[in-house]
Amino acid sequence: MRVLGVDPGNAVTGYGIVEGMQGAFRLVAAGTIRTDRLSRGPLGLKKIHEELLAIVKAHAPVTMSLERSFVAANVQSAFRLGEARAVAMLVAAECGLSFFEYAPNEVKLAVAAYGHADKAQVQFMVRKTLGLADDVALAYDAADALALALCHLGRERLGRLERIAASLRAPRRSRS
Amino acid sequence: MRVLGVDPGNAVTGYGIVEGMQGAFRLVAAGTIRTDRLSRGPLGLKKIHEELLAIVKAHAPVTMSLERSFVAANVQSAFRLGEARAVAMLVAAECGLSFFEYAPNEVKLAVAAYGHADKAQVQFMVRKTLGLADDVALAYDAADALALALCHLGRERLGRLERIAASLRAPRRSRS
Repeated sequence: MRVLGVDPGNAVTGYGIVEGMQGAFRLVAAGTIRTDRLSRGPLGLKKIHEELLAIVKAHAPVTMSLERSFVAANVQSAFRLGEARAVAMLVAAECGLSFFEYAPNEVKLAVAAYGHADKAQVQFMVRKTLGLADDVALAYDAADALALALCHLGRERLGRLERIAASLRAPRRSRS
Repeated sequence: MRVLGVDPGNAVTGYGIVEGMQGAFRLVAAGTIRTDRLSRGPLGLKKIHEELLAIVKAHAPVTMSLERSFVAANVQSAFRLGEARAVAMLVAAECGLSFFEYAPNEVKLAVAAYGHADKAQVQFMVRKTLGLADDVALAYDAADALALALCHLGRERLGRLERIAASLRAPRRSRS
């Protein structure tokens, strides 16, 4: 199962695709979409839209895992962050991806086992979980996006294990 | 010149296209895109995106006039409003429309000559300006979108008049 994590930002949107197979995780692709000078307008959103569509087409993820933002410095920042998020959500709907949102501290907890981990700690744990060699470059925003993908894959696995455990606990019906 | 006004909302996005010709304004199209049950997710944004693209294709406006939101009840509302706005901005970029934003009180001032006009007053003035017959139905959200289009056309006209006035005031160069 391939999951695309997206970490939308005002000037940089991180993305990362992870394939989860039988408890192992493999990096498929990761990077950033930069819209620095374009960010405050339609052209920045168009760039994010086009690049995310191309990424989905190239790597065929089935699920999108998006950061759910609860906080922003102010209402204006929230409008801007909401804009980049919206484009990611639109791509999920256009490409038929299932869609999940996770709060930043859920993601940190899932990846770094600590809800207030900083960017360097998240990056370190993402590298370790995916077994990345030292010479593989990984921007913080891309690492955050991979963490979102890993968070979703971890949740999925936990859900499966819980269902198995529940089925084992359930009393077997004896034939009568 | 055809202008598409868009008034993005959490559950209803209004749109309205006005053609401005030599000081006269004509209604081209107006209506609402409802995403009530879909509004809080990717499918609602996809619906807004598809319908706005279809509206631009059908009526070929050259400019988009969008409500600039400064206020929201809270950061969460701002995220949601930003999402619908983002999809409109994306459509502007995708279709090559020039793009302008106006604050709600600018729009009210332009249309109803009163920055704190209520929805009924805006609707009344929009109907009057466009010469709509009494039997033409017009939802508040569609009226707000038409007001955005009229606001932009009014600004454009004012700009042209100011340039003409400035050229008349400029001292003529005498031939030497």
